[in-house]
Amino acid sequence: MSYESEHHNTHISQSFNEELEQIRTELLTMGGVVERQLSDAVNALVGGDTDQAEQALKIDSVINDMELMIDEQCTLIIARRQPAAADLRLIISVSKATNDLERIGDETSRICRYAMELASEGKNMQGYQEVRHIGNLVRDMLKDGLTAFARSDAELAYKVAKQDKEVDSEYRTAMRSLMTYMMEDPRHISSVMNVIWVLRSLERIGDHARNLAEHLIYLVSGTDVRHSSLKEIKKTVKRVEERQ
Amino acid sequence: MSYESEHHNTHISQSFNEELEQIRTELLTMGGVVERQLSDAVNALVGGDTDQAEQALKIDSVINDMELMIDEQCTLIIARRQPAAADLRLIISVSKATNDLERIGDETSRICRYAMELASEGKNMQGYQEVRHIGNLVRDMLKDGLTAFARSDAELAYKVAKQDKEVDSEYRTAMRSLMTYMMEDPRHISSVMNVIWVLRSLERIGDHARNLAEHLIYLVSGTDVRHSSLKEIKKTVKRVEERQ
Repeated sequence: MSYESEHHNTHISQSFNEELEQIRTELLTMGGVVERQLSDAVNALVGGDTDQAEQALKIDSVINDMELMIDEQCTLIIARRQPAAADLRLIISVSKATNDLERIGDETSRICRYAMELASEGKNMQGYQEVRHIGNLVRDMLKDGLTAFARSDAELAYKVAKQDKEVDSEYRTAMRSLMTYMMEDPRHISSVMNVIWVLRSLERIGDHARNLAEHLIYLVSGTDVRHSSLKEIKKTVKRVEERQ
Repeated sequence: MSYESEHHNTHISQSFNEELEQIRTELLTMGGVVERQLSDAVNALVGGDTDQAEQALKIDSVINDMELMIDEQCTLIIARRQPAAADLRLIISVSKATNDLERIGDETSRICRYAMELASEGKNMQGYQEVRHIGNLVRDMLKDGLTAFARSDAELAYKVAKQDKEVDSEYRTAMRSLMTYMMEDPRHISSVMNVIWVLRSLERIGDHARNLAEHLIYLVSGTDVRHSSLKEIKKTVKRVEERQ
């Protein structure tokens, strides 16, 4: 039985169905806000736009509130509806995904603060190209992770997990080149360090986007693939497809 | 009604009680493993002991397995027992705390890797005193956070949350002094960067220990204090005490 049919057959209560769909929709709404914040933060940094960084930073408290609100709804549904099987997995994975989105928001807020410092420090733009590039990679991972949730698409979630390897590799390359630059020109250590922190935050955002994808795979497969290798994840995703 | 009496009156099933106590015990066992790994990692780094760092690094997979195991038990209890009120809060807070412990294990594993690199790089020990000091602070926070869970002690949990401010402040001071050192002596940039990453990991461990404390406060008070100020947390803890 596929996840979708299992999911819609386990209960006939219309309002229960609606509650479940609502938390999924709210997760996606929250994801859209986080995605926009991330995109604005990277643009603000690369463009030296302090106002845009400040605006994006303000979104942090909105994201925090959304996390608390969705999590509370998840707890209420568990207490009232006593869900099992796929319904329970939906609630658990939405709750965990919400937590990862909030952490992406945290890292993005850090990027906003560094963007403001970098803008005030002036013209050294070493590493900005890498920020733009890795920023685009992790934004796409986040977008795909959310789309995977919207469509219960395990194959797309696997793609996100795989993409994280590329981000890690690009991150290491960028880090090596910034270290070399610092050694050659120590006058810029302070501003280059800010760029290094930004890259670190982007790398972490990639990790959280991968977590998001793993929660979706748990939702559709019932297998908890956290701490699994890509190979194991691929097997799990393949089993899901064969069932459909 | 106090948390403890509420907790023991909501159901009479002996085996349900045992299941709930078991996940709490397993959380504390996992916490003990993480605490030991952290202590070993910091000692390995400061003492330049590659073997100890390697041994501590191996614990990472044990910690990951414990996370999956405890989380699976939490899901099973929800599905089978249909818990509400304080029982549901216990399960949710144990599941979330487990996740924070796993992340502390992740950061500690990073520290092990940097310890190995630093040991192979030789004699520059700039920042080691700060690593020792902040390492002790966050280890105590973790220990107290776990004790708070063992005793349902909201007051102690509040102390942990408060302690995080001190860690953040010590971290910023250490970071400033390492930046100055790098600028004055760029030959050591590479090894000092490794110490900087270690300090960052320790600062994050402090954040996760604070999260642990917040989950305990949610458990005993029913109020989700994530993203709350220390002042708000104090109020919540005070309400708990007045009820007892």
